[in-house]
Amino acid sequence: MARRQLATLLTDFGTADPYVAAMKGVILSACPGVRIVDISHDIPPHDVLAAAIVLAQSAPYFPPETLHVAVVDPGVGTERRILAGRLGGQLFLAPDNGVISFVAAAMRVEALVVVRDADRQARAAASMTFHGRDIFAPIAGRILSGLAVDKLGPPAGTYKAMELPAPVEHDRRIVGEVIYVDHFGNLITNISGELVARGWRDPGGVKVGCGGRGDVPFALTYGQVAAGEALALFNSMGLLEVAVNRGRACDVLAAGVGSEVIVMEAGDASR
Amino acid sequence: MARRQLATLLTDFGTADPYVAAMKGVILSACPGVRIVDISHDIPPHDVLAAAIVLAQSAPYFPPETLHVAVVDPGVGTERRILAGRLGGQLFLAPDNGVISFVAAAMRVEALVVVRDADRQARAAASMTFHGRDIFAPIAGRILSGLAVDKLGPPAGTYKAMELPAPVEHDRRIVGEVIYVDHFGNLITNISGELVARGWRDPGGVKVGCGGRGDVPFALTYGQVAAGEALALFNSMGLLEVAVNRGRACDVLAAGVGSEVIVMEAGDASR
Amino acid sequence: MARRQLATLLTDFGTADPYVAAMKGVILSACPGVRIVDISHDIPPHDVLAAAIVLAQSAPYFPPETLHVAVVDPGVGTERRILAGRLGGQLFLAPDNGVISFVAAAMRVEALVVVRDADRQARAAASMTFHGRDIFAPIAGRILSGLAVDKLGPPAGTYKAMELPAPVEHDRRIVGEVIYVDHFGNLITNISGELVARGWRDPGGVKVGCGGRGDVPFALTYGQVAAGEALALFNSMGLLEVAVNRGRACDVLAAGVGSEVIVMEAGDASR
Repeated sequence: MARRQLATLLTDFGTADPYVAAMKGVILSACPGVRIVDISHDIPPHDVLAAAIVLAQSAPYFPPETLHVAVVDPGVGTERRILAGRLGGQLFLAPDNGVISFVAAAMRVEALVVVRDADRQARAAASMTFHGRDIFAPIAGRILSGLAVDKLGPPAGTYKAMELPAPVEHDRRIVGEVIYVDHFGNLITNISGELVARGWRDPGGVKVGCGGRGDVPFALTYGQVAAGEALALFNSMGLLEVAVNRGRACDVLAAGVGSEVIVMEAGDASR
Repeated sequence: MARRQLATLLTDFGTADPYVAAMKGVILSACPGVRIVDISHDIPPHDVLAAAIVLAQSAPYFPPETLHVAVVDPGVGTERRILAGRLGGQLFLAPDNGVISFVAAAMRVEALVVVRDADRQARAAASMTFHGRDIFAPIAGRILSGLAVDKLGPPAGTYKAMELPAPVEHDRRIVGEVIYVDHFGNLITNISGELVARGWRDPGGVKVGCGGRGDVPFALTYGQVAAGEALALFNSMGLLEVAVNRGRACDVLAAGVGSEVIVMEAGDASR
Repeated sequence: MARRQLATLLTDFGTADPYVAAMKGVILSACPGVRIVDISHDIPPHDVLAAAIVLAQSAPYFPPETLHVAVVDPGVGTERRILAGRLGGQLFLAPDNGVISFVAAAMRVEALVVVRDADRQARAAASMTFHGRDIFAPIAGRILSGLAVDKLGPPAGTYKAMELPAPVEHDRRIVGEVIYVDHFGNLITNISGELVARGWRDPGGVKVGCGGRGDVPFALTYGQVAAGEALALFNSMGLLEVAVNRGRACDVLAAGVGSEVIVMEAGDASR
């Protein structure tokens, strides 16, 4: 069993409390040579959708055999399953609550199992509330020590998939919504570049409506519009993003997760 | 002198300023092979009690020979001593202001010394205000290079101990208080599971009063009550915690550090 | 080409989004053995001045051959150049927007080149907006793999330098301003210790005006004044800092970046 060298952690634990460090201590006690990279611990508490987006936009960039441990787990202590998987050459350990669903949709699923005896371990552990430290970290230690994930339990069959709202097309319009607001206040939507490209060949003939604005132009980079002006672009995730050059689109456009975003003809004046 | 491989840092420096990185640079310049794990840098400024709690809840999970450097030090530049210790097989370096006191109470104290010449080093350093970089980090480098902590100075004898408020028992009630509020808004108290177990064998016969609520039931996990409902449990630290399933107890119950928490008979109606 | 072992990252990306982790994944995919230290990801968005100060106050403490990657880049996607340099035995990779200017002013510039073909790489990458992941991280991977920075492109000649406001001296007064407010609320100014020492030999004969206060005394350490009282000192950067012992000077004195700070005779009553 070849030891693995690299693990990532993704949680909603924040960085003020001892929780993340306790998990790292348990992992390092099992595998002293492992390097642990933080993906984020600032996922909004219990926000599985945000965690699933962040995991899907970071995990694919890591080297093969990296183990990604994602503990955003509002169902801790209930009967939700724990999944271990090999996807696209990388390894994942997470509750079966949807957090791996965008990763699983985008990467080849080579193995996906339900971790056996996690319940029994939970009962044996000192705590019923800190599965990150008492269940996930010890299992991570076993995987990092070289155990193949398909030895951890029986095939999962299915996994819980997050349901992203699907954009709707009608009358030469695509109506979607904001699914994530990033640190810069950029509004990331559920509208893919492919979808827009199917409707319009020339982005010069398209505009975007969002928040109070019906005429946000497309651009290739933030700097193509003046500071303070809104723009739309296809971002590093391949999704339509509404941004403000050197400003916060969420504030300027008064929009957030769930706000409607419309892609339409440049000459569309009906809004 | 065998080099040591793993160090942790615990500070109240925050993560925006150059202070943490400067400490890491000094440590890595002394010991290029060391891995440094952040316990937290988001301890509230000057809050030695919070730091002591966080250290005690994370350090024990790390491998033997890990060096834990805790610099929450409102007395920087005054005559407070600097302690180096070996406790329970792990190593600690911290000001003698109480930050190690819960660790020292829980782990076996194998050695505890006052670091010699720290004052002289302080005077020689460019700065009188940044002991983390100019004093603690260089000493950490010496320990990580293999120096035994008992070579750093004379035995400390005693150390400053934090005084946690003690819960009071009378009339079939335990009256304690909130000592820490975590990232999820959970209210962690000074009432241990042992203390409650001495008074009541059956947690079904007990309830908790906290904030505006006199009837918070005990549960084993957050998910045992409905979303938004309050519950009490013994948390991963073995302490009574008042929480709200998928919510923030500090907001729902309008309670914080210092708020009174009462454990009482389920039928107690006097509150 | 000897592989390098240590890299740092300095960004304004925050810690909630996948951006920092994606950069780390790309770097680790190129150089699996590298250790990556975070200087900070909490630089205020687009604040090149703050980033330049933080870089200059942390990078010099790292071991030789450390690569510092600084991506605070409000001009992403515009024609700003990307610089790679060897300064004082350490390596730097950053946009040419001033972020390296204080480092370059303080350390010996051994090499400084404009990275060739970064534009072409930008056009080839999936994204026009995430140069941290798609341009800076791959270049960092090449440098960490052992490539000499002067192989990356032609000499830069000059670099963009941040313009710090210069303090003004007249009538036995030095008039400067606050340039940075740290996590503790300390007010860091553009007035160096050397400048003050030229005017006054005895700091006992000098006082400081800042915010609403005209009589802030000098001290060597925070603890030399009572808790809640203001003091001035020369901080770990060698700059005049106005602080409040165990308090937040920015709040107590109602001052922030840009606020005027005056060093004057202790008996100066004209303010």
